[in-house]
Amino acid sequence: MSYERYFQENRERHLKELKQFLTIPSVSALSEHKQDMKEAAKWVAGKLEQAGLAKVEIIPTNGHPIVYAEHTQAPGKPTVLVYGHYDVQPVDPLHLWETPPFEPAIRGGKLFARGATDDKGQLFLHVKAIEAILRQEGKLPVNVKFCIEGEEEISSPNLPAFMKTQADKLAADVVLISDTSLLAKGKPAISTGLRGLCSLEATIATANTDLHSGTFGGGVPNALHAMVELLSSLHDDKGRVAVDGFYEGVPELSPDMREEFLKQRHNEEQLRADLGLDALYGEEGYSFVERTGARPTLELNGVWGGFQGEGTKTVIPKEAHAKITCRLVGDQDPAKTLERIIAHLEAHVQPGAKLTVKRGEQARAFNMDPSHPMLQKAADAYERVYGTRALFTKDGGSIPIVETFSRILQAPVVMMGFGLPDENLHAPNEHFNLENFDKGLLTIVDYLKQL
Amino acid sequence: MSYERYFQENRERHLKELKQFLTIPSVSALSEHKQDMKEAAKWVAGKLEQAGLAKVEIIPTNGHPIVYAEHTQAPGKPTVLVYGHYDVQPVDPLHLWETPPFEPAIRGGKLFARGATDDKGQLFLHVKAIEAILRQEGKLPVNVKFCIEGEEEISSPNLPAFMKTQADKLAADVVLISDTSLLAKGKPAISTGLRGLCSLEATIATANTDLHSGTFGGGVPNALHAMVELLSSLHDDKGRVAVDGFYEGVPELSPDMREEFLKQRHNEEQLRADLGLDALYGEEGYSFVERTGARPTLELNGVWGGFQGEGTKTVIPKEAHAKITCRLVGDQDPAKTLERIIAHLEAHVQPGAKLTVKRGEQARAFNMDPSHPMLQKAADAYERVYGTRALFTKDGGSIPIVETFSRILQAPVVMMGFGLPDENLHAPNEHFNLENFDKGLLTIVDYLKQL
Repeated sequence: MSYERYFQENRERHLKELKQFLTIPSVSALSEHKQDMKEAAKWVAGKLEQAGLAKVEIIPTNGHPIVYAEHTQAPGKPTVLVYGHYDVQPVDPLHLWETPPFEPAIRGGKLFARGATDDKGQLFLHVKAIEAILRQEGKLPVNVKFCIEGEEEISSPNLPAFMKTQADKLAADVVLISDTSLLAKGKPAISTGLRGLCSLEATIATANTDLHSGTFGGGVPNALHAMVELLSSLHDDKGRVAVDGFYEGVPELSPDMREEFLKQRHNEEQLRADLGLDALYGEEGYSFVERTGARPTLELNGVWGGFQGEGTKTVIPKEAHAKITCRLVGDQDPAKTLERIIAHLEAHVQPGAKLTVKRGEQARAFNMDPSHPMLQKAADAYERVYGTRALFTKDGGSIPIVETFSRILQAPVVMMGFGLPDENLHAPNEHFNLENFDKGLLTIVDYLKQL
Repeated sequence: MSYERYFQENRERHLKELKQFLTIPSVSALSEHKQDMKEAAKWVAGKLEQAGLAKVEIIPTNGHPIVYAEHTQAPGKPTVLVYGHYDVQPVDPLHLWETPPFEPAIRGGKLFARGATDDKGQLFLHVKAIEAILRQEGKLPVNVKFCIEGEEEISSPNLPAFMKTQADKLAADVVLISDTSLLAKGKPAISTGLRGLCSLEATIATANTDLHSGTFGGGVPNALHAMVELLSSLHDDKGRVAVDGFYEGVPELSPDMREEFLKQRHNEEQLRADLGLDALYGEEGYSFVERTGARPTLELNGVWGGFQGEGTKTVIPKEAHAKITCRLVGDQDPAKTLERIIAHLEAHVQPGAKLTVKRGEQARAFNMDPSHPMLQKAADAYERVYGTRALFTKDGGSIPIVETFSRILQAPVVMMGFGLPDENLHAPNEHFNLENFDKGLLTIVDYLKQL
């Protein structure tokens, strides 16, 4: 039967299985979920076996396990390595979820749950596409490998080492990843660029105890004052990062590149309205797609200190905290950038306040040439299923491992995303639009058959 | 027997009773403690009855009850109104307490518990001093009234109205309050000035949902950025509050006043070392005692937004919060000051960010003339018990009700404090030095007998 019909007939079963996957709270960042991570890995391995892959393994690492599978029975045909991740982001603030994050619910053609689109729902498409081809045709048109990790949301600390030692096992002609978005409903896109990342956590400590703001207020350093002064020094009044040397390695936007961005016809006014904002905000002189696609950024992801409860507490807090991540582009060096930010913080901290910094993730930006045939064929597949050829875009996010795959395996990486930009990734009410669930399955099958 | 001996013989019983008082978690700011507040009021009333006061009442208010008591059997003698509060500050951060805040423990001659010095321990001294005189002598040398409230830590919203309607009942020749500190161990002080207060909570809201910092970072407003920019605009680089008109009504420090501050011989180097600070910090051109005694201040008591958990979360938070209190001096108008701060915040908020403000407490600063005989006699009492005459000081804290007492009852207010500046008021490990517990009892008895 046609794949359209096959996927229609199996739709209920597929969604039931995906919902089961989404009930596992596989939050990689929180140690309390260690057991859930194991369960999620086991679940993925089970589904790969059920799909009919010849070999399936759960490989322990120093952190959460990697699920590896292969089905290489098409000699002379290209080998496709599918990458995905079974871990998800933390769920707080929990009270803003309309339905609990690990109790998947379908509303208005959308499947709501943490991980629905990032990345459980998207990696699940590949498992079911392979299952479909094997059930329909008994064999695959290409050789297929799966490498599904559980540490993407914590920047894949163990995967690069695994990749290096297992480079032969993982060797492929193309790496296929579904962990990005269409530009908008019905407008497919293949990302040919990802921003890099570096992160840190800063702590300001002042007195050895919280102090009464009456007795001491005005006469001692306040950790929160020191922190807000310090953090506000990180940007100038034009929205640029004010850290010395931060923009080293950032390519100037050429007229051609700006032309390419214009092709996306991004509707900033619509975005502004959708987000409920009075105004967008960012570095002066750039559009939204340029700011997020081609410019680096430094963001505060969390800041806290002092009294957060009900009512008033007249306290001068002894410490304050900030979590910071940067998105990097071009040749920005993540390690160097991190050290520059730390040097800036150290130089600007208020007298009487002590700064300590915990270094976090580091990843380089990734870029590839859209004219590569593996990418062109992916755009063809989208065109056949969606009726619209995929645009080649630069994505603002970071999948640190993409650059590593490309470097270690020396293979092109095709980022065939099926999410939508407003699906609340990393936020309450994450969801996956089922239109792209359906079309995603068909697009993957089409792509594998055309390779 | 001598009062020294009496208090020694009854010391164990007194401490046992005080500990019992300190086990009641009477946190007025948190609605979950409503029942504990009632229990604490009942406990105070019970002890006043036990002490032998002729009339004891628990008077309901719109908030937490007031305990009133009187013993007015000394015609022709002055009437002393004792004020104190049975409510305490919240206890977080709880993990920094060496012993739980509501499990009183004596270590190294200090009694540790929330409220030990502010103000349960200090108000308890008055109850036991009266009890002692009645037991030893059968009558009091003066007329005594008690007005003990449960809302001091939330700025006494209901007491002023009570005072106005019950001005005749409360009428007194002197208001006696123990809710302040000695200057240092063995150096008694009577505060003749208190700073006023105003407070607010600011919220910044940006998008209608938290956003992924990859997809959106650099292109949308970040509530935390907007908040730190806004908060850092509240001070200039000389530590002065940068709000237009903030210093209106602040008296210039005359050479005489500076001389008075110098007399305190405050050891800033010792304070710095005690607090574990690299440096003190504050408004340029003033000493620590001037900054806290005679200058207004604006402090951040709490700031929060975004991810505060373990690990990294690449989120652009949709909202950020800040709690702010100001200490006011001289003729600064609390309501006007609050509106000025709000106007400043509204004028400085970043494009794309929405500000909302919740107004909090308001109280005027208080000042009185140290030459008043009621104050001079208090200094005498300290001198007889401590061997050192009390200095007249200006205190940085706010007891909003003091100014109200002085205004409504038209009586001098004697702030006879027995705390120490390093007793962690409003902070973890609050404690009360038992040396001042012992000497406090004797000082109060001495004062009442000399009036």
